[in-house]
Parts: sequence; structure tokens; C-alpha cells
Amino acid sequence: MKTQILRILRNSPDYVSGQELCEELGVSRTAVWKSMNKLKEEGYEIEAVQNRGYHLISCPDVVTGSEVGSRLSTSWAGRKILHYKETDSTNNQAKREAEAAEHGTLIIADIQSAGKGRRGRSWSSPAGTGIFMSLILKPVLRPAYASMLTLVAALSTARAIEETAGLEAKIKWPNDLVVNKKKVTGILTELSAEMEQIHYIVIGIGINVNTENMPDDIASTATSLRIESGRQLSRAALIACFLNYFEKDYESFLSSCDLSSLMEEYNKRLINRGSMVRVLDPEEEYEGKALGINEKGGLMVQRGDQLEIITSGEVSVRGVYGYV
Amino acid sequence: MKTQILRILRNSPDYVSGQELCEELGVSRTAVWKSMNKLKEEGYEIEAVQNRGYHLISCPDVVTGSEVGSRLSTSWAGRKILHYKETDSTNNQAKREAEAAEHGTLIIADIQSAGKGRRGRSWSSPAGTGIFMSLILKPVLRPAYASMLTLVAALSTARAIEETAGLEAKIKWPNDLVVNKKKVTGILTELSAEMEQIHYIVIGIGINVNTENMPDDIASTATSLRIESGRQLSRAALIACFLNYFEKDYESFLSSCDLSSLMEEYNKRLINRGSMVRVLDPEEEYEGKALGINEKGGLMVQRGDQLEIITSGEVSVRGVYGYV
Repeated sequence: MKTQILRILRNSPDYVSGQELCEELGVSRTAVWKSMNKLKEEGYEIEAVQNRGYHLISCPDVVTGSEVGSRLSTSWAGRKILHYKETDSTNNQAKREAEAAEHGTLIIADIQSAGKGRRGRSWSSPAGTGIFMSLILKPVLRPAYASMLTLVAALSTARAIEETAGLEAKIKWPNDLVVNKKKVTGILTELSAEMEQIHYIVIGIGINVNTENMPDDIASTATSLRIESGRQLSRAALIACFLNYFEKDYESFLSSCDLSSLMEEYNKRLINRGSMVRVLDPEEEYEGKALGINEKGGLMVQRGDQLEIITSGEVSVRGVYGYV
Repeated sequence: MKTQILRILRNSPDYVSGQELCEELGVSRTAVWKSMNKLKEEGYEIEAVQNRGYHLISCPDVVTGSEVGSRLSTSWAGRKILHYKETDSTNNQAKREAEAAEHGTLIIADIQSAGKGRRGRSWSSPAGTGIFMSLILKPVLRPAYASMLTLVAALSTARAIEETAGLEAKIKWPNDLVVNKKKVTGILTELSAEMEQIHYIVIGIGINVNTENMPDDIASTATSLRIESGRQLSRAALIACFLNYFEKDYESFLSSCDLSSLMEEYNKRLINRGSMVRVLDPEEEYEGKALGINEKGGLMVQRGDQLEIITSGEVSVRGVYGYV
């Protein structure tokens, strides 16, 4: 109900009368009044003027189900949101919920006590300024296709950052996002499967949003959207924007079971595209020119006369000059 | 301690004195005596003759950690065994234990209340006559390699059935085992992974061992080792034999990260090898001659002039004549 009230207030330039709300929601005046009070308690500034109705003046920067949900235009992505004040990591939480959860369920936490990066690395998760979320997907797909979904999520997140923060978000293959050559987003995808069929996929996304100062030890390689844009952002708006894009991008992906319809948008944002990169293959290091991803998500690198396709994230790719 | 006592008694053609046991195990006479009593309670027939010592006369058909463990010659496979009188399914139990478990831990249950076959199908799990077990593996491998491990497990299980039951076990690609054209074993492999690294693999194996009569609805397509061999088998001996083979086969697999060193043994047992099969590809059905697996575990089928490689278990392969 709070979600629906917020959606109506947000979409109305003018005051909305209590009567209108009651009719649209099919509930009593008392029920509307109770929900309004709850919203005010959560930090929403809602003006109530007699004979005119309600008007939403400002929203707190919260990442609750109703705040995110009231901004969605999706049919399944994020239609069910589980919001936690604190959890160990949203991916772990998502894995615990996954068997029983519907496709598209989103787990959000204000604080992660044990945020995870790829390959067991930790992820700094300060309270209230970042986005820590995990999306549960249940596609009818073979496990081999799952790695492409990480690239889909990277693209959708980049689009959402561009739209919400007005920043140019670049993709560091396969799935880190970079603004002004510093990392703002990490994605950790986990998979539970039989040999032939995925049970579920959990896509965990961490975004540095409103952090004012990055910790010293990572300040040279990581940044936040606030630092780069100079303004405070609504985390809920960014999450909703991501979900709106992701639902479309995911369906483009599913229609061909590859990235053919998304690779142009992905490659537009690919950092180092057309430049020399160093490929840190454990078997052999070499330099080559990054050409872009192919439809399977592999990175194509021109190495002399030879075209190399890098398929594994075990292989690190760096620009020849500088961090990224 | 029970495991060690059983191992010593089993490997001694003659009586073993209490003194010898105390020395070998580094414990007191009383401790040995207590363990002997526990074993007798579990159904072991142990003769104790004054001045000569202990002698193992017979073992119950149990699948406890000590009964299986006392027969192992492995260094890691099954070195930790968790035995349950009843669980929903050993794969589910293994997944619950997996994060904390060591590589090679084996889950065994006497009864499964919700035994699982592939793609959510159920698996009949009558008490006390079958083997229901799941092996937890933690290889440093990319998820794409995991499907080959199912074929490794199929081969090791076939070898163990041959050795223990003296029957010819055939493999129905990719991982069912068949004796006299009827199914005796199903394997269900499940996977938890990041995009680039496996967290754990659970290989669930169900074997119809001492069932005297198969249920009517499956009697024409499924059988048990007892029905086919005409004799009662020790389930623990079969499990231990499987683990002994599996540890070697797994290490052969890991040395090349493919099936090149195992495919000859696999193909020797492949049912329909050299015969016409019908390939039930959802996109197109066709017939061809099954040639064997390649080093990645794909089934090679000669279709006219063309060589098809079938990589997915979503594709069913059947003999042109008969059930398998």
C-alpha cells in the first residue's frame, strides 16, 4: 500500500485528494491516513492541505521496498523486494532465500557485515551511502550461458548510472564499472545448477553512491558517484532505473540466448576499446589491441595477425598505460 | 576407533589379540572392549577367544562411516563420512553441509524421504537395500568443466559394480548405468559456483543394490544388482570400491582437465557404441551411429557424412531398437 501511495503521489504534479486515493486503492480513509503516518515516520515529507489533499515534498534516501517499488515500470524485475537493515552479504541472503523466491526477487541491505567481492575478496560496505543488492533469477538456461548474464547486468547498471547521475560509465571487461578511470561498481554472480539446468542465479551488485570520501587505501582506484558528480543521489532511483533497464536487457539476451543484440551498447562503453591492453594470462602474458566483446561475451584481442578470444575472468586485462 | 578396529580385523586372516589392538591403536584394553561391544550392538559377529583374541566372523549390511571407512584405501575420497538414518535427499543434505565440509566428504543415508532424480524427477529410495550417497568436491576448476565430472563418476561407479557384483555395467551417455539393458544407477550432479570458480560440486549417486523385486511400474526398465547377480551384496563394499576408483579417476581427470585419459575405459562400457541411435534433439530428431565420447565428454554421432557432437543432456539418445 505504501508503494502504491508513493507511486501515485510521485506521479501527480498537483495535490491528490484523500478521496482519490481511497478510490484508486480500494481502501478506507483511515487506512490511507495510517499509511501516510507510516511514511512520515520513515522520513517522507508529505504536505496535507484541507480540501486539496496530499502532496509529496521530499523523500528520504532510503532503499526500502516501497521507495524502490514506487519507481518501477517493470513487470517482474524487483516486483518482490526484500529489504534488510543488515545482513552478512546480500548474495548470501539471496542464496538462503533463492529456493523459495520468485524470479526477479531483489534483496537489498542497508549494511553488509561481510560484503563479498569476486573470488572471496571483501567489499567495503559502509552504512547508508552505498547500494548493496542481489537479484535472484531463475532462467530456463544451461549453466554455460550464465556467465553472459553478468555482462548484461554490467550494461544495465552502466545505463542506470548514466541516466541517474549524468556520468559516463565505462565497463572494464567483464563486469566492473568505472567512472573517470576509477571503480564505482562491482558485480558478483553466483550460480546453483544441475549439469543441464540452472536452479537459480544470484547477481550481486555493489555501487558506491553517496560516499563523500573513499577510504585512503582505495582512494586512488575507487570512487563514488557523489564524488564524481558533485551531488547527492537517490539510491532508490538508481536501483529502480537499473531494474527497468535490466528487465529489457535480460529479455533481449533471452531472445537469442547470446549478447548479439546488446554487444553494440556494451562495446560503446568498453574501456580500452581500440587501445592496447596487456593480457595477464597465467600461461602467457601478451599485449594486443582490444576490439570489443563477441556475441558470447568473450573479449576479442588483436595480437599481431592473430585474433585471440578471452573467455575467462581468470585472465586479467589492463590498459598498457594507467590503472584501467 | 571402530573404523580402525574393523580395518585391522578385516585385514587379519587370523585372530588379533587385545594386546596387539591396544598397541596399534594406542588405547587401553577397556577402550578396545567398549568398541567391540558397540560393534556387536551394530550387528557385527565378533568371536572372542581367550588367549587368542578377536576374530571378525560376519558384518551386517550397513552403510555406516566405520563400515565403509574400514574398507578404504583412499587419501581423501570418503575420508570423512556423514551417515544419516534418514534425510530428505543426500544431495540436499550435502548442499547444506557443503560450505563447511572438506573436499571428498561423503554423505550416506539409509532412507531418503524425497530422493531426487535429474530435473526434479523423484528417485525411489526404499530403506536398507539401496545406496543413496552424495560426494562433496571442491575442485579449483571453472564451472564449465564440472559436467565432465559426472562422466568420471559414472565410469568409477561402473568399475565398482563390475568388481563387486561381477556384472557387466554399461554406461548410457552421459551418466546412467545399465545392467542387462535395465537401469541400476542414476547420478545427479549439482553445482554451486561463481562465474569463474566452483564453490562446490555435489555428485549424488543412487544404486539399486539388494532390492529383491522392483516396483511394477519400473520393473521393465530398472533392475537391481541382486536381481541380476542372484546374490546379496555388501553395500559398504560397493561404496568403498567406488571411492577407491573415483579418487584415481578424478586425479586422472584433473591432470589434463579433460577426459582424454579416461575416455577409452568410458567408451568400452558405452552402450550402443557402434550402433545406430536416435538423437532426440528438440530442434530436430535424427538417427546416426554412436562412435563414443570425445575428450570433453560430448557424444560423437556419425550422421551420414557429418560428425555431430552432442554436448547437452537435454538431448536424449536412444538405441533404435529397444529401451536403451
